[in-house]
Amino acid sequence: MNLLLLHPEDFEAPPSRGQEQRARVTGRRLEHVLRVHRAGVGDELRVGLVGGAIGQGRVLELSPRELALAVRLDRDPPPARDLTLVVALPRPLVLKRVLLHATTLGVKRIALIHSRRVEKSYWQSEALTGETLSRQLLLGLEQAGDTVLPDLSLHRRFRPFVEDELSGLLMGRQGFLPDPAATRECPRAVSGPVLLAIGPEGGFIPWEVEKLGQAGLQLVHLGARVLRVEAAVPFAIARLG
Amino acid sequence: MNLLLLHPEDFEAPPSRGQEQRARVTGRRLEHVLRVHRAGVGDELRVGLVGGAIGQGRVLELSPRELALAVRLDRDPPPARDLTLVVALPRPLVLKRVLLHATTLGVKRIALIHSRRVEKSYWQSEALTGETLSRQLLLGLEQAGDTVLPDLSLHRRFRPFVEDELSGLLMGRQGFLPDPAATRECPRAVSGPVLLAIGPEGGFIPWEVEKLGQAGLQLVHLGARVLRVEAAVPFAIARLG
Repeated sequence: MNLLLLHPEDFEAPPSRGQEQRARVTGRRLEHVLRVHRAGVGDELRVGLVGGAIGQGRVLELSPRELALAVRLDRDPPPARDLTLVVALPRPLVLKRVLLHATTLGVKRIALIHSRRVEKSYWQSEALTGETLSRQLLLGLEQAGDTVLPDLSLHRRFRPFVEDELSGLLMGRQGFLPDPAATRECPRAVSGPVLLAIGPEGGFIPWEVEKLGQAGLQLVHLGARVLRVEAAVPFAIARLG
Repeated sequence: MNLLLLHPEDFEAPPSRGQEQRARVTGRRLEHVLRVHRAGVGDELRVGLVGGAIGQGRVLELSPRELALAVRLDRDPPPARDLTLVVALPRPLVLKRVLLHATTLGVKRIALIHSRRVEKSYWQSEALTGETLSRQLLLGLEQAGDTVLPDLSLHRRFRPFVEDELSGLLMGRQGFLPDPAATRECPRAVSGPVLLAIGPEGGFIPWEVEKLGQAGLQLVHLGARVLRVEAAVPFAIARLG
């Protein structure tokens, strides 16, 4: 946790930028401050308000029950990455890591989509419940020192997504689909807004690749080595970014 | 598994390039062919000889006990990446993923080192036994369609590593250490041999950063967002590669 994320309800008065204000923290975040930061009274912690500014929090009181902070929020979180990520839903454990890494990398729009090679059971997984999803996104923000949650959308049918929704996501963006069969090399350091689509383990099936191409995605290759989804996401983002 | 890796002892006669030869597979690999590939007699599988060529294997017989293949090895595995990876030993689960991803990415030299922020207990982990290590490396090769295992070395003390061994690893290479405090941006698409050093969660301590810098590593930053080790490895490799 490189940033302690605060929610409006942690504050004694509505949080406002530039003023020193009191906040209280319990639960998982308190645990982390006690066990990992091993903070003491008077220590300064990096803090941020979910959806808002970041700043410093001075430890006023610390017990196994509660942490009280004097918080001053005074600057913007790191800039977002203007990249929309479309990912075929991976298996639950991999999904958790993909969401965490994408959020850490500053992605603010994530669409999880179906594909022939996505097991139907993944859509029933506990990893897709609101609480588990938002936990991974918050962990990603804490890691990045960021406060702005990504928009996350679920698309349980491939065809309506690619025919009706993808064009909206692509508006004003260059879209790229890494594909080992592509002849064009993936460009580096693309300027301007980007959409990146990552297939399931085993790849999108040929019909899906064709539909994604028709919708406007450019097929590009990232070398002879096919990466697992959780490595492909940071690898391709670094390449494009 | 994008490639079925064969060992010399799987072959009826010593394997040789360009000839059709019979090989037998059991255990985990047989399981995978049965459950995931769902191959049948006559199907062609991508195969490779550990440390050798890749090619095709035609299924001659397939039962829950054994797979018999007619193997023809006829081409080289994908080229290696001329990148040496030095990583502060992560916790066991993360180590497994880092080894898998690095191997998939074509890294052929991996040094796991100690650092103040590496918990001593990690050096006693089951993840560091020969069998577990080689399993992760083989999984990485299978994913990449590669056959050449990386060299892996363990360095349980930071100071002897940085003072006596790092200069040898750096010979003829540019070395980079991503550090959020660095003023120089990490270069893109560096040509020639590279060494990449990745710190532990929380980073190398200042004294370690200084020692690594004195040994010849260039401090570079990868943006305001600090990534977890398992994401930092593919991200930084893509950036440099």
